[in-house]
This record gives sequence, C-alpha cells and structure tokens, in this order.
Amino acid sequence: MALLSFLFQSKPKTATAAKERLQIIIARERNGRTGPDFLPALHKELIEVISKYTKVNADDIKISLDRQGNLEVLDVNVVLPDA
Amino acid sequence: MALLSFLFQSKPKTATAAKERLQIIIARERNGRTGPDFLPALHKELIEVISKYTKVNADDIKISLDRQGNLEVLDVNVVLPDA
Repeated sequence: MALLSFLFQSKPKTATAAKERLQIIIARERNGRTGPDFLPALHKELIEVISKYTKVNADDIKISLDRQGNLEVLDVNVVLPDA
Repeated sequence: MALLSFLFQSKPKTATAAKERLQIIIARERNGRTGPDFLPALHKELIEVISKYTKVNADDIKISLDRQGNLEVLDVNVVLPDA
C-alpha cells in the first residue's frame, strides 16, 4: 500500500517522534455541481468523535484544507498524548 | 500536494466515474504500547457523521484496514448518490 509512505509526512524529527499520532484525510471529489460544502463542518465533528476514544488537546491538532480542480482534501494531524 | 495523486486510486473507469466521491483515510501510528484499538469503532461513527451531511448508502461504502509495522490505516471510500 504505497499510500502509507505519504502518511505522517509532517512528522517532526524531535522528541515527540515517539508519540502516538493519528492522521485523518478526507478527500471529496466533486463532479462540478455545487452542493453543500460540508468538509469544514465534518472535520469539527470528527474531532469530537475522536475525542471520545482518546484524549485530544486542541493545540495538538494541525489541519490543512487543499483544493485542486474538483478535489478538496482536508488533512488532520493529531499528536496523541501519552496514555 | 503529491498525496492527491494517491487519493481515489480505486476509481472505477465505468459510468459511475462522474459520481461524487468521498475518501476518508484514518492512519494511526502507534509507538509500541498497546492501548485501545479504536479504529473500527471510529470508522463506524464517521459513517454516521457523514450521513448527517449527505445521503450515504451502506453498499456504496468500501472499507479496507491495513496494518504495517506500527502503522494502521483505515481507508473508507464512499460513492455519493446524485444530489
């Protein structure tokens, strides 16, 4: 699964390297029609769902939203606190 | 963002090509300690969250769970129905 080599690309080389990480990528490929832009709202609820399973500090979450052509990609990187 | 070239890899070349698609990738990098395996439960709730924003038919969802070393990757592909 070559996709694995792209995950956690933004991994810092510092002491936090041994931390557990979670990365969520949501990609939406539109076929031209408008329709609601639900990625921002979806992302907010995802963080809530994740927080049910593991402690997540808001400042340990990095988010990026990229648009290229008809593709929108929301990339959420979370450094999980030590258990 | 080279990651984009990896998204929607499993896109069929058939009539459904013009459909809207959603891909969710959840990757968890563990640092050896066990800790709860929450990806399966997380994935179930994600589908529920997505269904709030757009109609999703259960049989339009393809899921794969890959493990490599300390990396677990849940890959959810959803073909969205015509609006």
